[in-house]
Amino acid sequence: MTKETSKKKNGTQEGRIWAHKDLLALKDLSAREIELILDTAESFKEVSQRSIKKVPALRGKTIVNLFFEPSTRTRTSFELAAKRLSADTINISKSTSAAVKGESLLDTAKNIEAMNVDAIIIRHEAAGAPKILADAIAPAVINAGDGAHEHPTQGLLDLLTIRQKKGRIQGLEVGIVGDILHSRVARSDIWGLTKLGAKVTVCGPPPLIPAGIEEMGVKVTYDLSEIIRRVDVLITLRIQLERQKGSYFPSIREYARFFGIDNEKLQGAKPDILIMHPGPINRGVELSPDIADGKYSVILEQVANGVAARMAVLYLIVGAQSEEE
Amino acid sequence: MTKETSKKKNGTQEGRIWAHKDLLALKDLSAREIELILDTAESFKEVSQRSIKKVPALRGKTIVNLFFEPSTRTRTSFELAAKRLSADTINISKSTSAAVKGESLLDTAKNIEAMNVDAIIIRHEAAGAPKILADAIAPAVINAGDGAHEHPTQGLLDLLTIRQKKGRIQGLEVGIVGDILHSRVARSDIWGLTKLGAKVTVCGPPPLIPAGIEEMGVKVTYDLSEIIRRVDVLITLRIQLERQKGSYFPSIREYARFFGIDNEKLQGAKPDILIMHPGPINRGVELSPDIADGKYSVILEQVANGVAARMAVLYLIVGAQSEEE
Amino acid sequence: MTKETSKKKNGTQEGRIWAHKDLLALKDLSAREIELILDTAESFKEVSQRSIKKVPALRGKTIVNLFFEPSTRTRTSFELAAKRLSADTINISKSTSAAVKGESLLDTAKNIEAMNVDAIIIRHEAAGAPKILADAIAPAVINAGDGAHEHPTQGLLDLLTIRQKKGRIQGLEVGIVGDILHSRVARSDIWGLTKLGAKVTVCGPPPLIPAGIEEMGVKVTYDLSEIIRRVDVLITLRIQLERQKGSYFPSIREYARFFGIDNEKLQGAKPDILIMHPGPINRGVELSPDIADGKYSVILEQVANGVAARMAVLYLIVGAQSEEE
Repeated sequence: MTKETSKKKNGTQEGRIWAHKDLLALKDLSAREIELILDTAESFKEVSQRSIKKVPALRGKTIVNLFFEPSTRTRTSFELAAKRLSADTINISKSTSAAVKGESLLDTAKNIEAMNVDAIIIRHEAAGAPKILADAIAPAVINAGDGAHEHPTQGLLDLLTIRQKKGRIQGLEVGIVGDILHSRVARSDIWGLTKLGAKVTVCGPPPLIPAGIEEMGVKVTYDLSEIIRRVDVLITLRIQLERQKGSYFPSIREYARFFGIDNEKLQGAKPDILIMHPGPINRGVELSPDIADGKYSVILEQVANGVAARMAVLYLIVGAQSEEE
Repeated sequence: MTKETSKKKNGTQEGRIWAHKDLLALKDLSAREIELILDTAESFKEVSQRSIKKVPALRGKTIVNLFFEPSTRTRTSFELAAKRLSADTINISKSTSAAVKGESLLDTAKNIEAMNVDAIIIRHEAAGAPKILADAIAPAVINAGDGAHEHPTQGLLDLLTIRQKKGRIQGLEVGIVGDILHSRVARSDIWGLTKLGAKVTVCGPPPLIPAGIEEMGVKVTYDLSEIIRRVDVLITLRIQLERQKGSYFPSIREYARFFGIDNEKLQGAKPDILIMHPGPINRGVELSPDIADGKYSVILEQVANGVAARMAVLYLIVGAQSEEE
Repeated sequence: MTKETSKKKNGTQEGRIWAHKDLLALKDLSAREIELILDTAESFKEVSQRSIKKVPALRGKTIVNLFFEPSTRTRTSFELAAKRLSADTINISKSTSAAVKGESLLDTAKNIEAMNVDAIIIRHEAAGAPKILADAIAPAVINAGDGAHEHPTQGLLDLLTIRQKKGRIQGLEVGIVGDILHSRVARSDIWGLTKLGAKVTVCGPPPLIPAGIEEMGVKVTYDLSEIIRRVDVLITLRIQLERQKGSYFPSIREYARFFGIDNEKLQGAKPDILIMHPGPINRGVELSPDIADGKYSVILEQVANGVAARMAVLYLIVGAQSEEE
């Protein structure tokens, strides 16, 4: 609790510098820092493919998953990443937490901090919740998705997947299709992609494209066929009915008709287009089943890269601290 | 994901062969394969009785418990088995999983596979769900109970318990009493016992004995007193009211009166009869309390053997893979 | 299961003796035994502040958290304590347990015992539940809170915190304010403090002070200002609305007005008074926010000491057993 909340740390790759206590948003990172994470992730990808999938980098560290929204893949991915680095993990979900007794988020976090943990991975429905924690406590805070703000490790795994498949990010044309308004994935993807030099176009039903999104450095189109002909990568977003408070489009069926990707709509696409999705997929809505499982899809590579990207983040944030001390 | 889904593996005992990627059903195994698991389990029983209850056999392996139905003993037993083999374990239960977001079972499994896990232990209300997974993904799939189909590790721990207490399975008379119709335990017990040469008789209220059960190689009786006089082992099944959709018997009280085992009904039984139950017991229904806790009961030995049997299964399926690579 | 349920064990500090299989209540311990735990906890405090927060003391031991009531801090604190001692941990909560199938507590415990676990940490709404288990099973049973009876590790961490801050317990004046009637924390604190020689006064609305509490060796007052002027330590209790069946006080607002601690009420207190609270705090009820976070508050030290106290308990109970064998 007495540690300073911001400290300089050394990354391990070629003397490049990792200088953040927390990972809250890709908006906060430089291109060089994002590339450091991606390079570190590359070196960890191999660990998950070994027979003995474990390195001792974070032995004796304690990492807490504090999830206020349900999640299989993100929580499991972080938990696996931590375990493959030999850290101890503790899971706290909303239903079992003191939240049911009315405790404030900050009190919960300060209590976890008092137990001398090294990192708290938080998912919360309120945008900005991870930042509030990060400013208040000494352990590293890693944002696993906060409202419609950011989901930075999803952005990182998307970048990692694109870089592996295309050999570069710089200069690529990337389309992001769907509910841009409510999507933290879209925000993290946009920040990461534009920082690394990709040209991003967002596309969706007009009510789901936020006004002023162009200020993030992206183009906007409402015409799916236009971007399909042009892009190297098409990131489709999950329609999250559970997060929509108003009625932004007439029906799922109509959404699928105009924005769902199927073989017919992919006529005219580049022959090496990548189709991505953060999952879980609503089959027949965002993607037809043959596209979800087809040759353009790299959805399962995204999942595999998620573990590697999270190992890299935990290693750079929690591990570097250890080397200093 | 590119591994073939069926592979030859070597067991470790006397050159005998373990040749399955998955454990879905005792129906699929030969007597020799079942005996290999039982022999391996014997050697693991001792580990759980040590002061340091841990061997490094599966260090660096990742084992996922994917439970779509609530369970204390089976989930805990598998988790302990995995940890005593030094594997990393991840628990995913229905309430926390993406199932609440409507993701298909297969998409959930393919996502878990993409994280490079070594085995998925699945419990599911639908018979056949583990088989669907096993055919679709590379990691080992272990059935922890699927609908009214099979619960193979329960069958194995029952066989292990009988073999330890009686010195053999071959030639024993075994009665299975209760709701045969809905019982995956009964099916796994019948396959395992008959393959190893026991003579099995099932007994219960007529509506709870499935038509054609004789084709599994068992006899049928509706007269409890007849088999009690004859059997070496009496396996009582749990009345699972939560799984019964119709009204198969008039009342719990009537069931207990005709099929509940108590001291009076055990008059005329062999003096060394074994009374078994997969738990959790409905005391006063399937068994009177004095029988559940009495000299014939081996119910807690069954629980202890469950950890050993599951260690054996995980070791043969996940560990042998490791030795090959 | 065949081990005797009560055994002599050696503590590790200066030949002092730890002689209990279980930790059920501070009422059961001598002053010397409590001090042994506190001294052991001191030596473990340092482990949680290391970069590698782990010692191998309980490697290969299995510790089960069996929680029938929701809890963040206590469950997490025990889980961390066990992991920092290198034990394997299994979490069983009410919602996932066989309790939903109607199994008795004793059958659940006997099943867990049959899996050869070393300790069961139990929280239960019924006072006395841990004692029933402890008498019935061989593994160590550690009470993590039972109804309104005791919460001994909370008492120990409170003692540890007071001893660290004040250098002693003997002769201190300690006030306990709030709902004494329903508080297991108050009972454990009273037993621990009085055994170590502190003078305890309880204070609260008359309906929340149990008749005959003076027999525990404490004084009673209904006048908060009187004890505030006198005490070295003021332990405030959580108002647990969820546990109150009748209407013992008119309203939260009125409680806060008369018994909530704020700067105004602390006028006249000793300049080095300690303000404690077991958490989670109802801010603005038991404590004003500036007091909760202010210079007198040692609430987060209590949390940190909770891990150390629980490591000590697990080490003395589970570890000493290991050394014998």
